[in-house]
Amino acid sequence: MFRSVAEPIGPPAAGAGRSSLGFWPMSTSLFTDHYELTMLAAALRDGTADRPCVFEVFARRLPEGRRYGVVAGTGRLLDAIEAFRFGEAELELLERTDVVDRATLDWLADYRFTGDVDGYPEGELYFPGSPILSVRAPFGVGVVLETLALSILNHDSAIASAAARMVGAANGRRMIEMGSRRTHEDAAVASARAAYLAGFTATSNLEAARRHGIPTAGTCAHAFTLLHDSEEEAFRSQVEALGAGTTLLVDTYDITNGIKTAVEIAGPALGAIRIDSGDLGVLARQARDQLDSLGARNTRIVVSGDLDEYSIAALRAEPVDAYGVGTSVVTGSGAPTAGMVYKLVEVDGRPVAKRSSHKESRGGRKSALRRHKDTGTALEEVVHPVAESVELGPHDRVLPVPLMRGGQRVEGLDTLAESRERLRAALVSVPWEGLKLSRGEPAIPTTFL
Amino acid sequence: MFRSVAEPIGPPAAGAGRSSLGFWPMSTSLFTDHYELTMLAAALRDGTADRPCVFEVFARRLPEGRRYGVVAGTGRLLDAIEAFRFGEAELELLERTDVVDRATLDWLADYRFTGDVDGYPEGELYFPGSPILSVRAPFGVGVVLETLALSILNHDSAIASAAARMVGAANGRRMIEMGSRRTHEDAAVASARAAYLAGFTATSNLEAARRHGIPTAGTCAHAFTLLHDSEEEAFRSQVEALGAGTTLLVDTYDITNGIKTAVEIAGPALGAIRIDSGDLGVLARQARDQLDSLGARNTRIVVSGDLDEYSIAALRAEPVDAYGVGTSVVTGSGAPTAGMVYKLVEVDGRPVAKRSSHKESRGGRKSALRRHKDTGTALEEVVHPVAESVELGPHDRVLPVPLMRGGQRVEGLDTLAESRERLRAALVSVPWEGLKLSRGEPAIPTTFL
Repeated sequence: MFRSVAEPIGPPAAGAGRSSLGFWPMSTSLFTDHYELTMLAAALRDGTADRPCVFEVFARRLPEGRRYGVVAGTGRLLDAIEAFRFGEAELELLERTDVVDRATLDWLADYRFTGDVDGYPEGELYFPGSPILSVRAPFGVGVVLETLALSILNHDSAIASAAARMVGAANGRRMIEMGSRRTHEDAAVASARAAYLAGFTATSNLEAARRHGIPTAGTCAHAFTLLHDSEEEAFRSQVEALGAGTTLLVDTYDITNGIKTAVEIAGPALGAIRIDSGDLGVLARQARDQLDSLGARNTRIVVSGDLDEYSIAALRAEPVDAYGVGTSVVTGSGAPTAGMVYKLVEVDGRPVAKRSSHKESRGGRKSALRRHKDTGTALEEVVHPVAESVELGPHDRVLPVPLMRGGQRVEGLDTLAESRERLRAALVSVPWEGLKLSRGEPAIPTTFL
Repeated sequence: MFRSVAEPIGPPAAGAGRSSLGFWPMSTSLFTDHYELTMLAAALRDGTADRPCVFEVFARRLPEGRRYGVVAGTGRLLDAIEAFRFGEAELELLERTDVVDRATLDWLADYRFTGDVDGYPEGELYFPGSPILSVRAPFGVGVVLETLALSILNHDSAIASAAARMVGAANGRRMIEMGSRRTHEDAAVASARAAYLAGFTATSNLEAARRHGIPTAGTCAHAFTLLHDSEEEAFRSQVEALGAGTTLLVDTYDITNGIKTAVEIAGPALGAIRIDSGDLGVLARQARDQLDSLGARNTRIVVSGDLDEYSIAALRAEPVDAYGVGTSVVTGSGAPTAGMVYKLVEVDGRPVAKRSSHKESRGGRKSALRRHKDTGTALEEVVHPVAESVELGPHDRVLPVPLMRGGQRVEGLDTLAESRERLRAALVSVPWEGLKLSRGEPAIPTTFL
């Protein structure tokens, strides 16, 4: 059921199409709000576009009742920044629609990101106020990345944060992400990546295998059974094509008959059965008994059908070997966006912050560390001005790492596999209350120095 | 504030990149679940891949409490079907990861969609069970489109359905979609399109202007004010660059001071002010009074900041001229996916349907019509077997239209502007209870013949 790809394929090199058949018209530079470019135009005109600035990405709060967030998308963002160029096609659109003036078009034609970026590595936990990304660049160079940075980080972190809760609920059992059909076609690829980062075993999405090297899984849908004149014929065909190790979907007609037929045809070496509807706990127990009685003791049971972290947890005591999860993971299980913002916090070395009403921000460039007990359990997230040195205890950990320097990606950044491992280790350090699925406060408090 | 593009730019021609800078590695064929291809492989092997089939897309129910759904994405889907080809890069991935056998790879290399497609046009309303899309093709040709069709229709319809409620709540006032930063970067482009289809006036998303010809809007964020040494300098710079007709964001520091400064600098010809935080109703009234007292009687008031259909409706009595809407529209306002399914309903001319437990389906190829009173008010959605002729009253309307014939797109399909108009007209026909924002039953019942 699980197939691995030999090696991941990275993002496309700029200027090089991979498919022999079709292309999207893409640099990433128009994944941008109109106002980023009008701000740039005004700032170029009055000379402030060159002022050295610091922008920070953070979330004011976690989605309601969530205990932690998972940083995801940073790797995709670095790719997207490298592809943030204004070519002829992009400039033509901006000129034709009169978004900005000629001087700004000329400036954009030469645009390359030249700044420095630090941030929490992918797979790191975050809490309210954590400085997840810090961009240091002249105003014009940094401001135009706002929309793209937030799109990627908000989406991918929302999916990874939901997925991590599901992986926790599954308690070590296999998890297959199969939600592509429930989200935008390209968001589906990013969702597969985020879910895998969070500990899912595989995805149904083939483009995610190509783009990110994620293992894919899948065998048959109900349509395949309905296509055939009988369930028996469908199963026989599937086993002949995919081998006895395949997963047979047994709930098209009657599950008990389906399991009987499945084992008759595939033999006790049948890889797995899948149940996609009904009371999954009851059905899994019945199926396990029936499989065992038929001698198919090693045949696994896969369940799917509107699962979320709560229903996964509710199946903990049942003989379920793997979960297929769709809608809930790709929609962030009630929190489809992470709510991060990209704020200007420093201009020319002095802190700046919005002051009106309830959306107050903290000015100044910040760093953060996480304090831990001797036992390794996390105690608090400490967010502090970079200028202010903070004593680091033996179990404490500085959270941001360098990601880009002078517009170049830092060497040796984490692979997706390393990010998976980072998250696994970070979750081990969370106090046990923080791993509960029920609504509550963040697992650790954030202290602002 | 609003800028129009001269003409929409269509989707990229297969094989032709538009940007001089970068490409995504794309045909659309890997936006596909692994199991679609393993089903295909088994069906090719046993000969059933050639059986004539009908697949139908429908929603078993509307999102909880919603009164109607809006069909969106059909145009994007037709583009995506035309780009559904397996080139060298796609075949290489499938071979390397051992997803399917050689015979299946050879079949895929020649894949072109050759079937017929009918469906509800974009902008049409749908209800539980409405046959939104019907695909008639040999099993192998039709089954591989399942994931892609559902990704596009589920996403775009979810956004359009939420957006239509917001447009209704705004009661004719301008609506700007500015949610790109709260959703995946490419989903943002589709969201802008869906919101525009549903009646939004403009989007912040520049790629949506390029790809779909949607008007874009935007001026400045708080960062622009913070960049400058004073609000006054920021406003002066913006007015010099963008003219007095621009929109000044007045809530960075103190709103009353902000408005005073704005009118001092731009004069009474100031286009608009924007308020992005606080109690928007109270602030809009105060701002209107202040603007009027300063002689800026034609200066409009734009509000933004976590608006959804309910808060938009709550501002109906306030002097608000335009709404900027972000998170809620791009996340479907609580319903981020439309929950449509793609089901095999007919094989070799005979109806087929899953029979187990609670996910029952209705077999057989279906059509639908909407019955209306003499007054034009919709009465019911009638879903019937295509084989069965149904009498059409003088005010009734057949809903599905031909979209593709023999793999070719039907000529003269609706433009995006026509889809907008279709939705506007369809909403006029909905009984008044069905336009309420509160939770309730579908606006009209679905009758299955």
